[in-house]
Amino acid sequence: MKVAGVHRRSLWAAPGREALFVIDQRHLPHRLEVARLANLAEVRVAIADMWVRGAPLIGATAAYGIALHCAHAAAADDASLHAAQAELDSARPTAVNLAWATRRMLTVLLPLPVAQRPAVAWRAADAIADEDVAVNAAIGRHGLGLLQALAARHPGRPLNVLTHCNAGWLATVDWGTALAPIYQAQAAGLMVHVWVDETRPRNQGASLTAWELGQQGVPHTVIADNTGGHLMQHGQVDIVIVGADRVTARGDVCNKIGTYLKALAAHDNGVPFYVAMPLSTLDLSLHDGLAEIPIEHRPPRELTHITGRDAAGGLTEVQLVPDGSPALNPAFDVTPARLVTGLITERGVLAADEASLRATR
Amino acid sequence: MKVAGVHRRSLWAAPGREALFVIDQRHLPHRLEVARLANLAEVRVAIADMWVRGAPLIGATAAYGIALHCAHAAAADDASLHAAQAELDSARPTAVNLAWATRRMLTVLLPLPVAQRPAVAWRAADAIADEDVAVNAAIGRHGLGLLQALAARHPGRPLNVLTHCNAGWLATVDWGTALAPIYQAQAAGLMVHVWVDETRPRNQGASLTAWELGQQGVPHTVIADNTGGHLMQHGQVDIVIVGADRVTARGDVCNKIGTYLKALAAHDNGVPFYVAMPLSTLDLSLHDGLAEIPIEHRPPRELTHITGRDAAGGLTEVQLVPDGSPALNPAFDVTPARLVTGLITERGVLAADEASLRATR
Repeated sequence: MKVAGVHRRSLWAAPGREALFVIDQRHLPHRLEVARLANLAEVRVAIADMWVRGAPLIGATAAYGIALHCAHAAAADDASLHAAQAELDSARPTAVNLAWATRRMLTVLLPLPVAQRPAVAWRAADAIADEDVAVNAAIGRHGLGLLQALAARHPGRPLNVLTHCNAGWLATVDWGTALAPIYQAQAAGLMVHVWVDETRPRNQGASLTAWELGQQGVPHTVIADNTGGHLMQHGQVDIVIVGADRVTARGDVCNKIGTYLKALAAHDNGVPFYVAMPLSTLDLSLHDGLAEIPIEHRPPRELTHITGRDAAGGLTEVQLVPDGSPALNPAFDVTPARLVTGLITERGVLAADEASLRATR
Repeated sequence: MKVAGVHRRSLWAAPGREALFVIDQRHLPHRLEVARLANLAEVRVAIADMWVRGAPLIGATAAYGIALHCAHAAAADDASLHAAQAELDSARPTAVNLAWATRRMLTVLLPLPVAQRPAVAWRAADAIADEDVAVNAAIGRHGLGLLQALAARHPGRPLNVLTHCNAGWLATVDWGTALAPIYQAQAAGLMVHVWVDETRPRNQGASLTAWELGQQGVPHTVIADNTGGHLMQHGQVDIVIVGADRVTARGDVCNKIGTYLKALAAHDNGVPFYVAMPLSTLDLSLHDGLAEIPIEHRPPRELTHITGRDAAGGLTEVQLVPDGSPALNPAFDVTPARLVTGLITERGVLAADEASLRATR
């Protein structure tokens, strides 16, 4: 999608294949900074420290991490590939796309002679990235159908979509998952306004979603995470669309912390609640999301401190919580399938139940 | 309650009755600053700009505002008192305690000769403040009973209480409403741990509740507003206790934005959800809280910018949201009575229904 009118992806390989470039999202919305990742260790840091984030983008970044490892390791032998896979998979435990992407890379590479692996690895990573773009475009088209049907029931006014966190193009290689239908709606001339949950901690909504939508010219309003329920009670939300980091066989949805609260409010107010996700986010090995999905706990400092733009235009970190008050920072929660109206995937809108989801494999 | 080991109230009259002192809560938790309010206009600013906040404290502050007006006005005649009342009432539209306190002051003063009004006004304001302390102590005792009953079901571990916003002593003259049972539990030797919702925007949880609890030595952990649902799903919350800014005849509860989302999560997980409130918070003239309670919209800047302590120890404001992204900042929401387990009042724990609430008058 666009930044200052120019089309960009969230990551791209260096022309000579010696490095990966990513948008270092820690500096948005205040500065657009591109980081160069030259080896596996740097890719791991970029994932663990959330220079890149969003389940699909983490997957694509990790795929390139394997490619970089093949290019630079003493030997891209089986043991070395397995070690690289383990190193990447441990960077973020919750999003299933990370393990999905590294597993897919090894499935392609392990049968090949070691000498062929470096070249094939880049092509395989490119394929994962390009596929992500195509998959998200398809998610956008299927989601657009939902929005068009809703808009037909509310003619003459913009459709109000609420989203949580950032599941836009910055969370993927391009288009996004939850925001793809919105970008498709914009392209189709459908009036849409987006309520952007600030999304504490880390503020991915206020920092990334608002920035994306602003750059793309989509009308939007930032709200506190506390506000969505109130808006739904007053008929100001027509549909909720969020992304996902992992979805179980029965349709339980793990996503950024706070998603569950919005799903409860949507349910209480008869607002449709959709989850947009590539099928790579589906983890059919799990059933009960609450009991089985590992929830990453991140540093308390993400909650007790915050960085923003000061009056001089620089970035300053300030402390919000009194000295001596501890904080807890689980990064995800699980929304039970019973609260999910449907899953918007590249193969269409699916019911959040075991029969529909198992049929995709 | 205590600050650095010394007992304080959140407001007090100057010894010579020429001014009111309040803790200017905008600087907490980083600096304890006391503001001197010398006239009606200054009291109005302190209420409107949230130097003081919390329904009971707003009421007490406004009562002293009437007293200051009587002391300093050319004449404390009826017209002048009505004008002062209107000026104060319009400072914050949602909390009913504000109008309750000014009405009570005028009910006392209007029958008196103008010359007697200044002296009586101070005594009447003192009475409102002292009553608030006594009422909150009673709320604390009734709430303690609930906590003791819960603790008996979970022996050997601290009781986990979740609270939203600040309904502690800083929101009242002393003790607090939602936190009064916790302070009473501490005094009674009952082990309690408090989950403190950060409470965006304005962060009254992270800034005020965490500070209060820390000063008092009550174990607590700050969490994002997004996190409470996840904790409830995992059995880590035994009870939710919040304050209220206005409660209708049928028991609908207006409180800080986001309260409704926590009530939904409590209901979904079988966690008792209590509202602690003096009966002055009850507005029997209203029935349907969603339709009838005016919701204050505050400046978007409270959401787009935030102030905290920088590395040099000073207070710095930083911008969180990209230039050009609008924000919406409704300050309250309404939790329907069906989600409220009970109301902890100075007369005991009441059901959130019309019969119980009308019986209090």
